[in-house]
Amino acid sequence: MLNTKKILLVITGLLSIGAAGQQNPVSSDKTNPSKPNFIIIFADDMGYGDIGVYGHPTIKTPNLDRMAYKGQKWTNFYVAAPACTPSRAGLMTGRLPVRTGMSSGKRRVLFPDSKGGLPDKEITIASALKEAGYSTACIGKWHLGHLPQFLPSAHGFDYYYGIPYSNDMDRNRIGGRDDLEIILNPKIDYFNVPLMRNSEIIERPADQTTITKRYTQEAIKFINQNKNKPFFLYLANSKPHVPLFRSNDFVDKSLRGVYGDVIQEIDWSVGEILSALKRNNLDDNTLVVFTSDNGPWLFNEHGGSAGLLRGGKGGTYEGGMREPAILWWPGKLKPGVVMDMSTTMDLLPTFCSLANVTLPNDRIYDGYDISTSMFGKGPNPRDIVYYYRGTDVFAIREGAYKAHFVTQPEFGSKEKTFHNPPLLYNLNVDPSEKYNIAKKHPKVINEIKQVLKEHLKTVVPVENQLEKL
Amino acid sequence: MLNTKKILLVITGLLSIGAAGQQNPVSSDKTNPSKPNFIIIFADDMGYGDIGVYGHPTIKTPNLDRMAYKGQKWTNFYVAAPACTPSRAGLMTGRLPVRTGMSSGKRRVLFPDSKGGLPDKEITIASALKEAGYSTACIGKWHLGHLPQFLPSAHGFDYYYGIPYSNDMDRNRIGGRDDLEIILNPKIDYFNVPLMRNSEIIERPADQTTITKRYTQEAIKFINQNKNKPFFLYLANSKPHVPLFRSNDFVDKSLRGVYGDVIQEIDWSVGEILSALKRNNLDDNTLVVFTSDNGPWLFNEHGGSAGLLRGGKGGTYEGGMREPAILWWPGKLKPGVVMDMSTTMDLLPTFCSLANVTLPNDRIYDGYDISTSMFGKGPNPRDIVYYYRGTDVFAIREGAYKAHFVTQPEFGSKEKTFHNPPLLYNLNVDPSEKYNIAKKHPKVINEIKQVLKEHLKTVVPVENQLEKL
Repeated sequence: MLNTKKILLVITGLLSIGAAGQQNPVSSDKTNPSKPNFIIIFADDMGYGDIGVYGHPTIKTPNLDRMAYKGQKWTNFYVAAPACTPSRAGLMTGRLPVRTGMSSGKRRVLFPDSKGGLPDKEITIASALKEAGYSTACIGKWHLGHLPQFLPSAHGFDYYYGIPYSNDMDRNRIGGRDDLEIILNPKIDYFNVPLMRNSEIIERPADQTTITKRYTQEAIKFINQNKNKPFFLYLANSKPHVPLFRSNDFVDKSLRGVYGDVIQEIDWSVGEILSALKRNNLDDNTLVVFTSDNGPWLFNEHGGSAGLLRGGKGGTYEGGMREPAILWWPGKLKPGVVMDMSTTMDLLPTFCSLANVTLPNDRIYDGYDISTSMFGKGPNPRDIVYYYRGTDVFAIREGAYKAHFVTQPEFGSKEKTFHNPPLLYNLNVDPSEKYNIAKKHPKVINEIKQVLKEHLKTVVPVENQLEKL
Repeated sequence: MLNTKKILLVITGLLSIGAAGQQNPVSSDKTNPSKPNFIIIFADDMGYGDIGVYGHPTIKTPNLDRMAYKGQKWTNFYVAAPACTPSRAGLMTGRLPVRTGMSSGKRRVLFPDSKGGLPDKEITIASALKEAGYSTACIGKWHLGHLPQFLPSAHGFDYYYGIPYSNDMDRNRIGGRDDLEIILNPKIDYFNVPLMRNSEIIERPADQTTITKRYTQEAIKFINQNKNKPFFLYLANSKPHVPLFRSNDFVDKSLRGVYGDVIQEIDWSVGEILSALKRNNLDDNTLVVFTSDNGPWLFNEHGGSAGLLRGGKGGTYEGGMREPAILWWPGKLKPGVVMDMSTTMDLLPTFCSLANVTLPNDRIYDGYDISTSMFGKGPNPRDIVYYYRGTDVFAIREGAYKAHFVTQPEFGSKEKTFHNPPLLYNLNVDPSEKYNIAKKHPKVINEIKQVLKEHLKTVVPVENQLEKL
């Protein structure tokens, strides 16, 4: 574990993506090598344990299970932050949210009164691919700024259909109902969330009952329209974030209750997308990635399960930031379970590498091109994961070891606990973070402390977007 | 929920297995209808979450994953007790261990100084099938009595190869080492456990390093020898029960450490068994069931994981008694996830039904013929699970609801907590038993109390086998 070297790799290694892309060994043997299609299907607040093939006993997900069996089930896949806005900023830019101003210790996410959003100087997956001739669509929840200058169309998307922020915002406490009541017994008009097409509000409040179905229809329409040119589709489901709504076809379909119904509708949607690809003969030229923005809201039975992982949404134990991640690309990806570490921030550089798109090297990227790992052609470049809460590093994973410098309950009490020595877990051996082994491994702790020190040198202050009111 | 009716079904419904077997609708469409082969592959102390397809992130189980994908993954499958001896007594007899004298609140299992064992009046899967012309073999750990009159050969098995009790027994504290030391840094000669062939001790101490490999070889030999006649093979791995040993081929193969190595060797073994069936063209006439005897020993990283379930070995939360269960019978079982409730006690009546074997109706069976559920041809007959600890009912599940009348830490402190009203969980909605809903459902609690009352009427005192010294 040579920290300094690794840190340098994080910084300088990624600057060479553009150059390396020219002779990318991965794309050389593809039948349609230059421009594969990319689809990211995102869930919202879904836990590590909420899919059949990740261990849930009463949620039926035959489409995701099949996708995992025919594709790759990644088991050490992370998001950039344990909350919605910073996680999505990391996904879109390949950069830690602390670098883009999209994280805050005071306001975890953007709210309807927020004036900030993803700065226009940021390069997104969509803007990078659009410049290379891709059609691009964002269908679903955005949550990177709802003012016009921050909407998907300002960030490389040709088309946008969805809600600009979370489905539980713009609360309308009809009849004096409290927050808990409107979440647990929700009605559409308790949430005055708009549904937008491009920059227009087309429905308010959005009918959340049919929204997953409509996202799916929009996504399939986009696929059908783009069967003859490369495309990038970002299908960001607004669910299973509370309040839980599902279409009539899925009411009482799951033993798991309404939460299960919602996941099963998302599973259905995934099946529809994969079928549309097959129907259009696009399956062998489309990489589909299914994952979620952060762990489950550990609230009550309206929230999901992190499976064997500790903690959930909002926190920096594994349950907050490790997610199911299924990669599917028939004929290209060797089916199996992949235990290599990766994060949503790796998707930007990986897609760009596969599409021979050169990224400008004027900024720090925190993502890696993981195509070597995907194609089983070489070692995984990622060995480190940073667990940020707001603008602070709470924990770092290096290899098997994770050190927690700070822990804090996910919600409610804001009491931070500082750990010195940090709590240390071996995540390979002890994925549930039960057995603190700090005393046995002072050398590992020193190495991770050095990683932190070097990392912090790369973080410079930027304008905070989440605190702009 | 009509309790009395259901209780009567438990008792009288099963008495009719023999009669029903004659016109069994299940076996009528099989190519070799009368005598399919049966294999039970058992693990020891493996948790609900220790297999890839049940959610473990760092244990690679490609053979079990494939078996689950091509077969059926059952997610509400239970054992008869949260400890080894009573669990195996339930499996073998289709009867709750309290009926056979094979459970005790004082001694959880049989020990090398025990004088008891499974009474010879009990009918086992082996003795029932042997009488119908099956070849029968027990390969692996027995633990239903090690005196000659209790060994597998006294209970219907033509052949026995294995250890008579747990692999951590007959401890030899060489050099004054304490129990923890010999478990965590084990050597073969710390455990003077015998390896037997039929009634002879052939090795002592058993070389536990190669034991999984040798069990596998013995099992394949038995399959090869019986390709032309019906057989029942009970392959009861001695692992991943501590102390953890694995053969050289599996050392350091798993990211999960030695526990993962051990599971991966068992996974390899499963792959070998299924290959042997295919090689002998027996796969379409052999039902293979993979499961474990009880949940993981929540001890340290040498113990497994119950995944999202609460608790582990020894206790009556789900983690103690719900197990992975994979059923495989190519061409016969529709692949998929089965969420119907079942238990190891159901295997005896199910196998007998499939093999047209009539069981005598002179005793209470607690198992059901679950073939309707397996073949998707009708409703599951089981609606109730009893969670016994020793000779006491600690909890009852009826449908989705589980009521805990008593809870007690799995090991260490013996403090019992009596709950009145009982703790109540909806296991479909809340599989992790986090949200006690007793206050909301007094009617359900009354119904389950009635189930308990009726059940206890069927339990009569018998000679206790575990307390015989």
